[in-house]
Amino acid sequence: MAGSQVRVLYSFDAQPGTGEMSVNEGEMLTVTRVDVGEGWWEGTNNKGMTGLFPAAYVEDLSSAPPPMPPPPLPSSYANTSSFSNDDWTNDFGFALPATTKDTTSTTTTTAAVSNTPDSQPNIGMKSHSSVNEDDWDDEWDDDDSEPGTLNTNGTSMYGFPQSKHIVKQTNSISDISEKEGNRQPVRKSFNRFSVLAKTGLEDYLAGLGKFNVDDIDKVFIDDDGTAPYWRRIGLEFSCSITSPKKESKFHGMKSFIAYTITPSFTNQPVSRRYKHFDWLHDRLSVKFSMIPIPPLPEKQISGYLLTGRFEDDLIEYRMTMLQSWIDRICHHPVLGQCDVLKHFLTCPNDEKTWKAGKRKAESDKLVGVNFYQALQRPDVPLDVAITENKLESYNRFFSHLDEATKLLQGTCVDQIKKHQGAFKREYTKISHSFSKLSRAFDMDPSNIAPHLTDGIRRVSDAYQEIGTIFEQEPKHDWEPLSNLLYEYKGLIDGFPSIISAAKNSIGKRKQLEKDAQEGKADIDQLPPVINRSDTVVYALHAEVTNFHHQRQRDFKNAMTSFLTEQISFYQKMIVYTVRFITIFITL
Amino acid sequence: MAGSQVRVLYSFDAQPGTGEMSVNEGEMLTVTRVDVGEGWWEGTNNKGMTGLFPAAYVEDLSSAPPPMPPPPLPSSYANTSSFSNDDWTNDFGFALPATTKDTTSTTTTTAAVSNTPDSQPNIGMKSHSSVNEDDWDDEWDDDDSEPGTLNTNGTSMYGFPQSKHIVKQTNSISDISEKEGNRQPVRKSFNRFSVLAKTGLEDYLAGLGKFNVDDIDKVFIDDDGTAPYWRRIGLEFSCSITSPKKESKFHGMKSFIAYTITPSFTNQPVSRRYKHFDWLHDRLSVKFSMIPIPPLPEKQISGYLLTGRFEDDLIEYRMTMLQSWIDRICHHPVLGQCDVLKHFLTCPNDEKTWKAGKRKAESDKLVGVNFYQALQRPDVPLDVAITENKLESYNRFFSHLDEATKLLQGTCVDQIKKHQGAFKREYTKISHSFSKLSRAFDMDPSNIAPHLTDGIRRVSDAYQEIGTIFEQEPKHDWEPLSNLLYEYKGLIDGFPSIISAAKNSIGKRKQLEKDAQEGKADIDQLPPVINRSDTVVYALHAEVTNFHHQRQRDFKNAMTSFLTEQISFYQKMIVYTVRFITIFITL
Repeated sequence: MAGSQVRVLYSFDAQPGTGEMSVNEGEMLTVTRVDVGEGWWEGTNNKGMTGLFPAAYVEDLSSAPPPMPPPPLPSSYANTSSFSNDDWTNDFGFALPATTKDTTSTTTTTAAVSNTPDSQPNIGMKSHSSVNEDDWDDEWDDDDSEPGTLNTNGTSMYGFPQSKHIVKQTNSISDISEKEGNRQPVRKSFNRFSVLAKTGLEDYLAGLGKFNVDDIDKVFIDDDGTAPYWRRIGLEFSCSITSPKKESKFHGMKSFIAYTITPSFTNQPVSRRYKHFDWLHDRLSVKFSMIPIPPLPEKQISGYLLTGRFEDDLIEYRMTMLQSWIDRICHHPVLGQCDVLKHFLTCPNDEKTWKAGKRKAESDKLVGVNFYQALQRPDVPLDVAITENKLESYNRFFSHLDEATKLLQGTCVDQIKKHQGAFKREYTKISHSFSKLSRAFDMDPSNIAPHLTDGIRRVSDAYQEIGTIFEQEPKHDWEPLSNLLYEYKGLIDGFPSIISAAKNSIGKRKQLEKDAQEGKADIDQLPPVINRSDTVVYALHAEVTNFHHQRQRDFKNAMTSFLTEQISFYQKMIVYTVRFITIFITL
Repeated sequence: MAGSQVRVLYSFDAQPGTGEMSVNEGEMLTVTRVDVGEGWWEGTNNKGMTGLFPAAYVEDLSSAPPPMPPPPLPSSYANTSSFSNDDWTNDFGFALPATTKDTTSTTTTTAAVSNTPDSQPNIGMKSHSSVNEDDWDDEWDDDDSEPGTLNTNGTSMYGFPQSKHIVKQTNSISDISEKEGNRQPVRKSFNRFSVLAKTGLEDYLAGLGKFNVDDIDKVFIDDDGTAPYWRRIGLEFSCSITSPKKESKFHGMKSFIAYTITPSFTNQPVSRRYKHFDWLHDRLSVKFSMIPIPPLPEKQISGYLLTGRFEDDLIEYRMTMLQSWIDRICHHPVLGQCDVLKHFLTCPNDEKTWKAGKRKAESDKLVGVNFYQALQRPDVPLDVAITENKLESYNRFFSHLDEATKLLQGTCVDQIKKHQGAFKREYTKISHSFSKLSRAFDMDPSNIAPHLTDGIRRVSDAYQEIGTIFEQEPKHDWEPLSNLLYEYKGLIDGFPSIISAAKNSIGKRKQLEKDAQEGKADIDQLPPVINRSDTVVYALHAEVTNFHHQRQRDFKNAMTSFLTEQISFYQKMIVYTVRFITIFITL
């Protein structure tokens, strides 16, 4: 593979200071290293720049089959790029070099990145030493700086930890603002894709690594005739996050925020910190490789979100984001029922119990590709052509939605900044102009129209206040919309790898059917592979169905709330303006 | 005077291509020529640039009395600059070189500039040959181009003539936009000041050029104990301008707009063109040198006012401006009663009658400084110290109001441009973002939420329409306010010369009192000079009172209307937004 030409299928933005290289869709690269690991390759572009890029984002153009392990796909798979007109890659997974085949030691996998040198790209997973990470109050977490200060030295702020990756990226305010425009939670999902690939979808299709799944662990997919969907087991529940408390240890040397979480099914409050959320996120990502896990709120609060906010307001903002995240997990028919979530929501605040549950979760074998073994789906075989069409339409849909989400989020950020800056300044300028007129009128020695002078002064004051309303407005409309889009961006980023896995399953099945036809493979192998391949596709269908239902509910609510706030905004303007018009009418 | 050092009292912006030089308050200039005429001097600044500047805008620093005719003021006058801390000049008039002493041949005076070479600054008065100017349908007027085209070659547009002065200035679009921000109708009033100076305020004070004033021509100033004011004689009336008609002559080669004007006291419609307004403006300026005449609408419509306007809309806009102008004339207690206005409003549409009235008006002897002879004011002598204090406070007031008016008008123009440009673009961007989201949702093959998709599409449409509302809004709020400020800028510009004339009258009186005390002047000369000096001051007081009453009415109405339109604007937004929120609520 090294030395070969590849074409970029999907644009990728490098993170500064990581050895990565930005690549653009359609660009040609010469691969220089494929043994980088974790799904990364090194290559040189036509400007002579060398850097790392995600191997799955490119398409191999050499006709020779890739010489590297894992067992290369037949070239017909590697080149089946029927959607290459989309902005969306569709060729993930099997072309990746596998580093470890160990499907169980996922802890090792996630920790493996921790102390790699800078040349080894850190792909966003928390890096923390496995020695300490059990501790309830350990040294791992970085959520120990003072909230309310904009810390740009790579340490954390507002009680939120930063991964080492973020530390490397963010060295100055300009770095922060550089990233403000596109809050793209792409890393987590890219990592998850790599987990899905590494834990051996091919082994699953081949029927390797089989084990018994307890009834309690089984997850069901139903089909009501329209589309497959996840069966909801147990009652839907909610949980509330309240009372963020700034706590400290080491005599105040380290401080963090503790949140009170109360699930509706126990009504027992528990205390959790950001690091616990982060741990839960990682466990869910490892376990459910076929379900995009919503991204946690960003580690750093973007500069424009700090404007006009005090510490309490910022803590509140963080809490709102975490509430939205946990809601999304709880309401998901599969994620909402899993043990690791139950542990997070119900474990009392003592270290021993927490550690026990944590270890249990981390030794769970039903993770990654193994989870397919827990799936119970309708015994209806899927038609290959119809499925391929569906996968193509999924790619198209998510590709377009990805673009649209980026654009609208960019507009949100733009509006937030403008409300705080340019728009507010407009009203300050208007206010200043009326104020100057009022002061000029005040110099009339005959003082012929004092009420007019006073009225204009009050209009000036009103425009000053209107400027403040403008500044505060995004918190009510653009910011919530932006936050929703941030979550959706994260969810959408999770789909290409899952769609790709399904495509590759179909490919594997077709190859086997062809081999069997040509007598190269045993015909008896066929039915179980088809069966497992269909399971992979069923899981995708169910999750896409879930996505659409979630999208319908979320955007209905978001648009209603957005428009309601817009109306309330204009009403405030009227209230302000009406208040002053009467002065002039009665003059 | 040539070769002497002068200090700039009042900043002046040169018009490009006229030989003028911009000067800044406080700057020192070396005078190189004083025989330029019409109130202009030539000088060199400390950067070595040479150009023309208004002589009245500078203060002579040489202690020697100015050697040039007209008879120089005693140096104590020329240097009495007690308000030099203001941004406002206060030393007008007597230091000016007079070109002609003929107080009657004002026609010659206004026509004198007509064919001067470029080195001779044209100071804004219409220049038209005296042979043709009587004609009802003569060649003088330039209001003969096609309305609806932006003509930048110095010819006119929208049926409005351009003076040669404007022709020289406006050679490109960049010239136009350069001037957009500050529509300062300063020229006319500067010229009027020069008329006031030339026609010999000093002669009036000295009692020269006396003649009998018919009772019917007398103008009265009363004092109710608060302040002197113009007595209103006859009923207040109004007149309406309607039905602008595009007419043409020479088989359509020349076209112009004819307006129907109907005064309330006759109810007889007459037809007038812009050139008739322009003629009226000039006659009023010549006759009432102690009353600032409101400026006519600008010759060129500024580029930003053309945005989104069609020909009919532009003609309507012009008409509104002319209506406002004629209202201001009609409502003025002195201007509203004068014969030349009556002629303009009532003369039937035949050339012969028009010419007769025109000749009569142009041979009127009661013009310029002579008009002081028509003033009948309370027989109460004015205290010098109190008067000087009042004049100082007038200067301060108008100086501040001048600045405030400029600033607010700049804000108006800025808002108009932003509503049409930046703000509209914001909404187009928002609309586009929602549209893209809707189109992405439309790609969901399961079409699970068609009403959501449709709702978002309609929100996108709504924001497009909101953009259009933004674009159109300034016509209702910022533009009328801007137009009012344009008129006020013109009125305010007229005051410094009138205040200066009053100051100089006081100065003359004080000098004479001193001379009489020292036996250098006959004591009998004193009472009539004091009397006439008081008349000059009474006229100023009366006009300032009138200004304040006018200002109170105008700004009360303007603010009421502005705020009403703002409310209606926000209400439109609510109507648009509410319309779409129901879609989402009922989803």
